[in-house]
Amino acid sequence: MRVGIVGLGRMGAGLAQAAIDHGHDVIGYDPGTKSGKVLADRGLALVTTLGELIDELPSPRIILVYVPHGDPTEQVCEQLRASASTGDVVVDGGNSHWEDSRRRHREFAQEGIRFVDLGTSGGLWGARHGACFMAGGDPDAYQMIEPLLRELAFDERATLYAGAPGSGHFVKLVHNAIEFGMVQSIAEGVELMTRSGFELDLPAVFDNWNHGSVIRSWLVELMGDALRKNPDLSRLATYVEDTGEVKWVVRWALERDIPTPVVSESQQALMGYRDLDAPVAKAVALLRNGFGGHPVHER
Amino acid sequence: MRVGIVGLGRMGAGLAQAAIDHGHDVIGYDPGTKSGKVLADRGLALVTTLGELIDELPSPRIILVYVPHGDPTEQVCEQLRASASTGDVVVDGGNSHWEDSRRRHREFAQEGIRFVDLGTSGGLWGARHGACFMAGGDPDAYQMIEPLLRELAFDERATLYAGAPGSGHFVKLVHNAIEFGMVQSIAEGVELMTRSGFELDLPAVFDNWNHGSVIRSWLVELMGDALRKNPDLSRLATYVEDTGEVKWVVRWALERDIPTPVVSESQQALMGYRDLDAPVAKAVALLRNGFGGHPVHER
Repeated sequence: MRVGIVGLGRMGAGLAQAAIDHGHDVIGYDPGTKSGKVLADRGLALVTTLGELIDELPSPRIILVYVPHGDPTEQVCEQLRASASTGDVVVDGGNSHWEDSRRRHREFAQEGIRFVDLGTSGGLWGARHGACFMAGGDPDAYQMIEPLLRELAFDERATLYAGAPGSGHFVKLVHNAIEFGMVQSIAEGVELMTRSGFELDLPAVFDNWNHGSVIRSWLVELMGDALRKNPDLSRLATYVEDTGEVKWVVRWALERDIPTPVVSESQQALMGYRDLDAPVAKAVALLRNGFGGHPVHER
Repeated sequence: MRVGIVGLGRMGAGLAQAAIDHGHDVIGYDPGTKSGKVLADRGLALVTTLGELIDELPSPRIILVYVPHGDPTEQVCEQLRASASTGDVVVDGGNSHWEDSRRRHREFAQEGIRFVDLGTSGGLWGARHGACFMAGGDPDAYQMIEPLLRELAFDERATLYAGAPGSGHFVKLVHNAIEFGMVQSIAEGVELMTRSGFELDLPAVFDNWNHGSVIRSWLVELMGDALRKNPDLSRLATYVEDTGEVKWVVRWALERDIPTPVVSESQQALMGYRDLDAPVAKAVALLRNGFGGHPVHER
């Protein structure tokens, strides 16, 4: 199958390589222009404009979009609405807000273009060696891309048609919310064991847990590997990057009176780790000094 | 090997059966006397007193204890301190507090008896088909039980010598703390999806996630299975049982100024679900009425 991939960053490049390995003819375009060169040496037909990508694909076109959510996705979708044709299938594989995906489905439908919101999980390893896909959109559009997804998937159960437009991205972002709580829980275990007074071999503990324990999971495996490669945590900063999707889930839940204590707390904790000069901490110290004379520390 | 098992409840019975299946000669005694009859038909030598169990085992004896933590474990350990002999190995496979285990190690050592605190994970399935073991205690005592543990373990990496006395149970209870946060995160995902407005097949979503996603894990698999077997959540109460070990971890962390926001919140949430007549909620409503005239609901 000849397929187009827009966005050759970490996820897009991994999936492009996987598709090439499965014998597909992959036309790649990266709006950021930073990526893709390496793939061109490995069988990717790299083009430098979206127009070329459209020209190179037979009808009905299948175009996978793997660019950051927000403006980059919006811009690519606007261009594709203008340049793709009736019957083409545009697939947003990123972490877009599901309400944006519902809107885009409507906007593409006005042009006769089919749009699938495709949650993609599995991280960098999954993109390259087998991902987990959750698709939302019209069933006929899903059926057009299902054979390709099944080839790029982790196994035969890793491809899901979730339902109506938006449901693929909704389910993926709930997955990310669960992931935040799981990650924070595992990380709190690292802190507990590091400060326990016991001389523990943390990578060995995580390796043990990943074999038969109740918490066996890919994240437990990753934590063990990461601690093995980074035995000295003192050289790392506490700043944690995030891309904001879990905030959408928490905000959406708040609007609907859906309690998410642990997911919310994991997001709050992550933000707190960034603010080592936190006004909130200073305000607490000042108030405690005010009513109880408790010491305030100067830097 | 001839081995004794004290406590034939869910975990003890599963491990006893697994040991029998591996060709061991298992002497079983259950202080509660409720269990064990079924196992007696399947090869277990069931005795009715701890004294008989001691009499039936060759020296040095290996005695696995799988009774509830707290008083039941304390009583069995007291009896074993009085009746076991120098060189015997007593293994507490339950979820005892690691400080109790350190004390018991010292108390048994005074009698020349070796004590191993053995965290056991994997749930009912693991007890029967392969568990995850974390052992604390003296290396020579661990070496005596290691061959048996390896046979009862999930695989060759599921048996860990964690270190000094108490470390096996400490590591196990940190595992339980992580488990609480993971469970609550996954459960919040269920609530988000149930109230999403999308028509989602939740068991199918969890099954999908367990194949290649970042959150793939035994708990995600269990959640899918449980929702498949219990499609109607409305017939269930919100009361959640727990056995208290995570409270020990949270309390211990508080005493040492170790923050555990998500683990603590998962424990708090669980307790909150029990109290449907919560005074705290009524107090909030009363205060909000007091300052803002916001309505208070009567039952």
